[in-house]
Amino acid sequence: MRAEIIAVGTELLMGQIANTNAQFLSKGLADLGIGVYFHTVVGDNAGRIKESLALAKSRADLIICTGGLGPTQDDITKDVLAEVLGRPLVIHQPSMDKMTELFAKRNMPMVESNARQALMLEGSDPLANETGLAVGVALTVDGTRYVLLPGPPSEMKPMFELQVKPWLEANVEGLEALHSTMLKFAGIGESSLEHQLIDLIDAQTDPTIAPYAKEGEVAIRLTTRAGSAQEAARKLKPLEDEIRRRLGGFIYAAEDISLEEFLLRELASRGQTLAVAESCTGGQLSDLLTAVPGSSNAFAGGVISYTNQVKHRVLGIPLNELEGEGAPGAVSAETAIRMAEAVRTLCGADYGLSVTGVAGPSESEGKPVGLVYVGIAGGGEAAAVELQAWGNRSTIKLRASKSALYQLWERLKS
Amino acid sequence: MRAEIIAVGTELLMGQIANTNAQFLSKGLADLGIGVYFHTVVGDNAGRIKESLALAKSRADLIICTGGLGPTQDDITKDVLAEVLGRPLVIHQPSMDKMTELFAKRNMPMVESNARQALMLEGSDPLANETGLAVGVALTVDGTRYVLLPGPPSEMKPMFELQVKPWLEANVEGLEALHSTMLKFAGIGESSLEHQLIDLIDAQTDPTIAPYAKEGEVAIRLTTRAGSAQEAARKLKPLEDEIRRRLGGFIYAAEDISLEEFLLRELASRGQTLAVAESCTGGQLSDLLTAVPGSSNAFAGGVISYTNQVKHRVLGIPLNELEGEGAPGAVSAETAIRMAEAVRTLCGADYGLSVTGVAGPSESEGKPVGLVYVGIAGGGEAAAVELQAWGNRSTIKLRASKSALYQLWERLKS
Repeated sequence: MRAEIIAVGTELLMGQIANTNAQFLSKGLADLGIGVYFHTVVGDNAGRIKESLALAKSRADLIICTGGLGPTQDDITKDVLAEVLGRPLVIHQPSMDKMTELFAKRNMPMVESNARQALMLEGSDPLANETGLAVGVALTVDGTRYVLLPGPPSEMKPMFELQVKPWLEANVEGLEALHSTMLKFAGIGESSLEHQLIDLIDAQTDPTIAPYAKEGEVAIRLTTRAGSAQEAARKLKPLEDEIRRRLGGFIYAAEDISLEEFLLRELASRGQTLAVAESCTGGQLSDLLTAVPGSSNAFAGGVISYTNQVKHRVLGIPLNELEGEGAPGAVSAETAIRMAEAVRTLCGADYGLSVTGVAGPSESEGKPVGLVYVGIAGGGEAAAVELQAWGNRSTIKLRASKSALYQLWERLKS
Repeated sequence: MRAEIIAVGTELLMGQIANTNAQFLSKGLADLGIGVYFHTVVGDNAGRIKESLALAKSRADLIICTGGLGPTQDDITKDVLAEVLGRPLVIHQPSMDKMTELFAKRNMPMVESNARQALMLEGSDPLANETGLAVGVALTVDGTRYVLLPGPPSEMKPMFELQVKPWLEANVEGLEALHSTMLKFAGIGESSLEHQLIDLIDAQTDPTIAPYAKEGEVAIRLTTRAGSAQEAARKLKPLEDEIRRRLGGFIYAAEDISLEEFLLRELASRGQTLAVAESCTGGQLSDLLTAVPGSSNAFAGGVISYTNQVKHRVLGIPLNELEGEGAPGAVSAETAIRMAEAVRTLCGADYGLSVTGVAGPSESEGKPVGLVYVGIAGGGEAAAVELQAWGNRSTIKLRASKSALYQLWERLKS
């Protein structure tokens, strides 16, 4: 079964909104075992919508359109499909009655054009709209399945879950759902990870292996089609085992959670706490940690020692170590260690984690942009690691924050 | 000029991410006066990418592709276009050197496949990648313009702004660009702003008025097409004047800068500094401030007093004010004021700004999710403001951070 998604709406082509509907539908179809091969976005233009429908019909068995079901003159998706398929539009009486009742309730005159929202193609299955007025449409013509959904996500999503899924399950033979396992990595780059799995990736058939990188994190998704979760597990396990055999040391979780959430869980389970001292990351490390609900169970807080004055006044680092002839300086392993130890003591936490570096755009202390030191105290001797982050100011901040989390993980493992 | 955007990436068809690149590019092209007629999303499949390129070529003068420039076996966009156009791929030496140097700096072996990221089509213009490794490509063949950009937004966006825009302006005749003025507001909600300008919005023709809200900030963009900046200014000024007459007190800038950047500039121009004490925002306020290059000129740093223990140990707030029978508690005006005063003194700053509240998901001290107190010290008597933020944990954190910045602006104005 090959599916395509056509989003209709000039506002998408103007960049006023992103096509999040296509993402939602693609996920939903994948879960049903239906592969999506193309997304298309087209404006509110009859000729171009026709062109897109004809193209999709030539290569897909299932065509889902979103948008253009509303009351305005721009909303022409149903009209165009009706013309393409040579089917007249007819009133869906229940939708019409619902609308009439609604306007009556609100003592509002029902503008004529609203009736358009109750139209459906003759011989199609109506898809009830729980959260709006426009009725959806599903029908099969010459073996091609067409589904028309409203554009507003608040209407489209429930209609897909409550109406389209059952309709597909009833109308499409032998759907076999996709099952996948997510492996999350830290401390290894995407290219080096792929390099060490290249033979598996090249040889992949079923299960499939998809590596991908979000800022500062790398993940691999193993995916297979199966009739049951048990069968899926049986198919996925050998591949996961082989990947763990090669790279197990970099895998922090076998589920889609961030490194910070994983670490907070780990600390909480040990009844331990973390305090951070941030210089170049300027609060981002703490922000990542406190984005996790319940972070206060393991995150005590910390100090943003952005200037040397604060490093000195709040963390008690001697000024002559931060400035002047022969001093290690603010961006140094020595200062990173001092910061980690000081914040740990100050906050009364089990671990102190620190970051100091040069986020840019310009160098500092004659040290290059991207040079970062991560310090860690607690659970062993205090230590610091030097790393060279790259990118612009915001990516350097993020990579430095993620690297600090990685160092904490290393410490927790040991 | 008719443009199309082709996003390459199976992860888009799997619904793992939304095609936000197409939105960003559509907006950017509209600003240049270039109309976008189709978006297409295609997987990492040579045959289907070819098919999409051929179709786009048949109906567009400008084809922008995103994704598939990375080092992995899936990244084939350059290879496919090279084949379609019959142009060999050649090494872009500066990108190659940059990469080699980078891996050397990090003492990491450079995996062979990375070299793929330095490839470009023979005779094309390279587009430098400020935030990543893959070089972009721009070229014109038989009157059709092709632009290949990386998939990660953190790389694609700067490449479009810094490389593609100038390239288009140099290579496309008679672009009558859109000129716009951005008015940034603080302390007023989108709906109330729209309400007070509704007559202007309804009557808009040229210039157009587009109000929009990003989390925690409201802005209005006035836009017109003009051959010159002078002509544009002449068309935009009367409308801006009228809006200022009505809502001038809420306008902090007539350019697209964040409230935090504006405030840091203002403080720096006065030679003053700011320190922050964050509880429920957990570092986000500091992160927003330090995202601004040069923030260290005015931002001293602060304390993330996430737990009462840290409020007590680091900021010296008496425990009996934070806990126990009849105590104001951590989430209170009294504590907000204490935090602001304490962090100001501790860091030796001119202003102390504090945030304490309930970010959720569950209530705290029997106080409801979203209840936030912002405290400010310096430049007058210390004070606190209560506000009720709404949304989920992350939106509450952001709104609380932005509200704190607004309070600082109020204080600086007085």
